[in-house]
Amino acid sequence: MTFHSMWAELLPIGRSAASGGYRRYAWTGADLECRAWFEEQARTRGLAYEVDRNGNQWAWLGDPAAGDAVVTGSHLDSVPDGGAFDGPLGVVSSFAALDELRARGTDLAKPLAVVNFGDEEGARFGLACVGSRLTAGALTTEEAHRLTDADGTSLPRAMEAAGYDPDSLGADPERLSRIGAFVELHVEQGRALDLTGDPVGIASAIWPHGRWRFDFRGEANHAGTTRLTDRRDPMQPYAETVLAARREAERAGAVATFGKIAVEPNGVNAIPSLVRGWLDSRAEDQACLDTVVGGIEKAARAHADAHGVALDVVRESFTPVVEFDHSLRDELARILGKDTGTGITVPVLGTGAGHDAGILSGRIPTAMLFVRNPTGVSHSPAEFAAEDDCVAGVLALADVLEGLARR
Amino acid sequence: MTFHSMWAELLPIGRSAASGGYRRYAWTGADLECRAWFEEQARTRGLAYEVDRNGNQWAWLGDPAAGDAVVTGSHLDSVPDGGAFDGPLGVVSSFAALDELRARGTDLAKPLAVVNFGDEEGARFGLACVGSRLTAGALTTEEAHRLTDADGTSLPRAMEAAGYDPDSLGADPERLSRIGAFVELHVEQGRALDLTGDPVGIASAIWPHGRWRFDFRGEANHAGTTRLTDRRDPMQPYAETVLAARREAERAGAVATFGKIAVEPNGVNAIPSLVRGWLDSRAEDQACLDTVVGGIEKAARAHADAHGVALDVVRESFTPVVEFDHSLRDELARILGKDTGTGITVPVLGTGAGHDAGILSGRIPTAMLFVRNPTGVSHSPAEFAAEDDCVAGVLALADVLEGLARR
Repeated sequence: MTFHSMWAELLPIGRSAASGGYRRYAWTGADLECRAWFEEQARTRGLAYEVDRNGNQWAWLGDPAAGDAVVTGSHLDSVPDGGAFDGPLGVVSSFAALDELRARGTDLAKPLAVVNFGDEEGARFGLACVGSRLTAGALTTEEAHRLTDADGTSLPRAMEAAGYDPDSLGADPERLSRIGAFVELHVEQGRALDLTGDPVGIASAIWPHGRWRFDFRGEANHAGTTRLTDRRDPMQPYAETVLAARREAERAGAVATFGKIAVEPNGVNAIPSLVRGWLDSRAEDQACLDTVVGGIEKAARAHADAHGVALDVVRESFTPVVEFDHSLRDELARILGKDTGTGITVPVLGTGAGHDAGILSGRIPTAMLFVRNPTGVSHSPAEFAAEDDCVAGVLALADVLEGLARR
Repeated sequence: MTFHSMWAELLPIGRSAASGGYRRYAWTGADLECRAWFEEQARTRGLAYEVDRNGNQWAWLGDPAAGDAVVTGSHLDSVPDGGAFDGPLGVVSSFAALDELRARGTDLAKPLAVVNFGDEEGARFGLACVGSRLTAGALTTEEAHRLTDADGTSLPRAMEAAGYDPDSLGADPERLSRIGAFVELHVEQGRALDLTGDPVGIASAIWPHGRWRFDFRGEANHAGTTRLTDRRDPMQPYAETVLAARREAERAGAVATFGKIAVEPNGVNAIPSLVRGWLDSRAEDQACLDTVVGGIEKAARAHADAHGVALDVVRESFTPVVEFDHSLRDELARILGKDTGTGITVPVLGTGAGHDAGILSGRIPTAMLFVRNPTGVSHSPAEFAAEDDCVAGVLALADVLEGLARR
């Protein structure tokens, strides 16, 4: 199967006719179709297929037990109404790179594997990178059991309903000990490569980032009969906080976003009792991020107090800055610099997005390749990479795997 | 059945254990349980029970065809997580007032009826007072057929699923022509009676009010990787508009509320593509309301433009000022002034809330009685009226019905 035909097979799965975006949420029908596709790709190629204790899928070329494996892959789930590339580009490119190595007849000294990490986007259970977090021990079994979706379905029940066994969820150090390097290819989620004019780049670091839930609790009341001075309307301090987030991020050169909200009772003629807003914020370093989030929280408290509204702020997830393994990064740059033969240094760039590679970097040497995204649009149906650039990504990944694994 | 025991029967129906509020949405299970209760009340009393062409329930004492009927009643559905009193107090008090008249042995010259209007709150289909609007011809059959709930179920299909026939939805002038007066008793939704120290008051007018949908359309993008300057984030102008609504309403002595919101894709790490906010605004007169809504829309457009966000404003519903029938109002004041024997004028008050009585006032003489609400809280589980005041309301309603219908 060519890159093109694999890509075409995935395209219709979980795509909303209304929005044109993807709704491939962990352990739902669309996700299971993607997973079936993965298994078929493994079997078609004669790769050893397995599902690990956390529901991540693996396809092995060579003996998994031999150790010092070179692993590549990404994820197949999506954010709500996400694009086609974020995740699947890495998985499809991994299989295509394996095909390329076989076509080259490369003599491999190490086992290779393609991996699909489960629930990377966290769209369903509110926590990103669940599959890799569990494997790395960055999420405990108990914490995973407490994750529930909007309908109150727990992660174990969701996995069970999807035909997977949730009883063994947990850290998998033995598996990680057999991996020598993990390389994740991903569509770029900004415009850096478009500005430098390169189809492919190498990641340097992932900005520290976190998610905070702001619960503004006021008093439900009738929108037509309650005087303004009698109100405890949580929508007012929420709105002030949205504006404060933009101001604080602007001042610090960081990003801060309120993209998700839940309102109760959410009736046109009812003052809300609860406005729950989720803040996503990221910055180049920890001190900068602390300043931004501290400033937003301070503004939120002042405005909540002024409206007689109670405020709880809960940090739902946090990932410190991730510096990818420097020697692996330099090895990639060397391989790509040599094999492309251009003499041009491959760009090395930071990113604000979290990835399974970031989670795993605390345990094993990891690296990332980015493929150019001409508009920088991401997590949207408008997300895009040109097919030529995708093919350049496959060849770069094949070069990297060959350089890392050949005898 | 006493007021107390009727009230106790209704209390558990459709009550959320989580919020303590009611979720009695039109044609859902909880609503159907309330409707079954109504039918049982009619049959237990030997009243002639019927459902009209728009699904409203009627219980008749005397010959419906005789004409010049005196009708009382209210509704049994609720807003999301509403209180126990808004609607049901009027229906329960109507049956209790009928019992009181029978106990008094009043000789009635006119037919009496208790009515339960369907879908008053509009929680499910987004339009308030559907049952009375249809009957009054203020909502056409075609418009009613186009109403859909959040799941895409149309009003006719919802009625059908509930076991009702939607084929005859439409204006019912013949029915209205047989009604001489309609009196709706309702819990007060403000604090006016608490301030004057009266258990019962009479309505003068309903403020003009409307609902406007503000659709802010930006561009979905990754919350971690999209620079602030590259964003078209609709949450920003939405937040500015929420604050503008408060400012404009304050300035004009009116009310304006954003209590309902829908965000797409509503993901923590996604800049929204769409933020849809619903404005509810009401003011003492039309000119004042126009000023408030005009000011809010102007601010919304300016901020949307500044963020590269498109804005559509759609007026979803509108009800002009309703002056209740002056001679019926004066008749009620005369009856209550005499019968209470206090010599104190019964308070006459305006209200910001819409009612079926307001819809019908364009067709037949209508009046309203309000029962004291000590905190003024409404559309909330905290909504309350003391049992003594409820009983005072029943007696006042009985006096009114007796005064209007006796030989």
